Amino acid sequence: MKILKNLLGFVPGNLSLYKMAFRHKSVATFLKDRAKNSNERLEFLGDAVLGSVVAEVLFKIYPYKDEGFLTEMRSKIVSRVNLNQLARKLGFNELVEFDPKSVNVTSKQSSLLGDAFEALIGAVYLDKGYDFTKEFLSQRIIKPHVDIHTLELTETNFKSKLIEWCQRHSKDISFEPIPNEVGENLKLFTIQVLIDGEAMASGVDYSKKNAEKFAAEKTCELLGI
Amino acid sequence: MKILKNLLGFVPGNLSLYKMAFRHKSVATFLKDRAKNSNERLEFLGDAVLGSVVAEVLFKIYPYKDEGFLTEMRSKIVSRVNLNQLARKLGFNELVEFDPKSVNVTSKQSSLLGDAFEALIGAVYLDKGYDFTKEFLSQRIIKPHVDIHTLELTETNFKSKLIEWCQRHSKDISFEPIPNEVGENLKLFTIQVLIDGEAMASGVDYSKKNAEKFAAEKTCELLGI
Repeated sequence: MKILKNLLGFVPGNLSLYKMAFRHKSVATFLKDRAKNSNERLEFLGDAVLGSVVAEVLFKIYPYKDEGFLTEMRSKIVSRVNLNQLARKLGFNELVEFDPKSVNVTSKQSSLLGDAFEALIGAVYLDKGYDFTKEFLSQRIIKPHVDIHTLELTETNFKSKLIEWCQRHSKDISFEPIPNEVGENLKLFTIQVLIDGEAMASGVDYSKKNAEKFAAEKTCELLGI
Repeated sequence: MKILKNLLGFVPGNLSLYKMAFRHKSVATFLKDRAKNSNERLEFLGDAVLGSVVAEVLFKIYPYKDEGFLTEMRSKIVSRVNLNQLARKLGFNELVEFDPKSVNVTSKQSSLLGDAFEALIGAVYLDKGYDFTKEFLSQRIIKPHVDIHTLELTETNFKSKLIEWCQRHSKDISFEPIPNEVGENLKLFTIQVLIDGEAMASGVDYSKKNAEKFAAEKTCELLGI
């Protein structure tokens, strides 16, 4: 309770919501139908509210950046890796209830802490409303803990990542332009990734470089790289 | 202006925001940096706000459904197809400004109207705030125009869609279980789609059937089916 109040900076209203936010599915019980008293439904809600708040923060910080830039910045901020780190820094490992026999919380793959962070946002939203949650996230989380300008500079270079992966697995990779169809905007480039001749994801943008980047990013995601 | 007032059901405050929401990139001019005075930045914001409002609506309508169900329902509601239809029904084709030489608005692939719908939500949000936008969307858009319970029943069967596609293109398809790694939750199934032996997307769930469904859905998306 003390940790929670310190973490939030306000007195929570509906405590049972916050308790649920910290309850991992490994210790949850079924309520009715397929619903559990775990944090997963709150995580669904919190993820959406977080996405919306971060979208607005970026929209206002960067009035002259296009939607591609904004989307990329948001992905960096709300990435699993980033949310897990953030939740760990905020002391979530002392707050989340889980079954240590079925979950390895120290594993890099584990998103238990980041998921609980999103669930907490869902709880704050239901307890206090959108404007309060926005203020809480901006002032208490983003401002002190998220270095937006550093994230702006950390470029995730999906193209080189993908090329390296193909080299390691002895696969041929190429980035092929796809001609525009009739009626399509002629200024747009479509680039398709081929691996060993097999079509992977494609990307579209006004610059060829960005189209390649998007195609590489989607292919990385697809291959789980 | 009259159409806009009829559509919104309220008097817009900042008119220039609404004008921008209806301006497609094909008629936009560059402002500064890579930003255009088109509706794309507003679409980024509106998409996020819409996702959040729909998440809450579903969270409250379905108190006993799990996050998988909620996520699927939201995808159906905010799908491009659904938003395009909705925007058309709301008369957006009379409101959106675009260059008919570079865009074919009647093409099934065109998401011009749905994009403008999201941009409009971004404009309403900046003009009137979250609670107003939520009320507007729930009362004026979702309640009269979105039949949630019918959407619940329309099952998009990605698995059969994918199998049919493979038959049509004479490709072998199989759904292969992937063994859990050490430390992973033993109750989870991971299923990988293989097409002609080539790994496509995979899905993870507590039920094998759902894991197959997710894998099929992601593969459909990847292949543009």
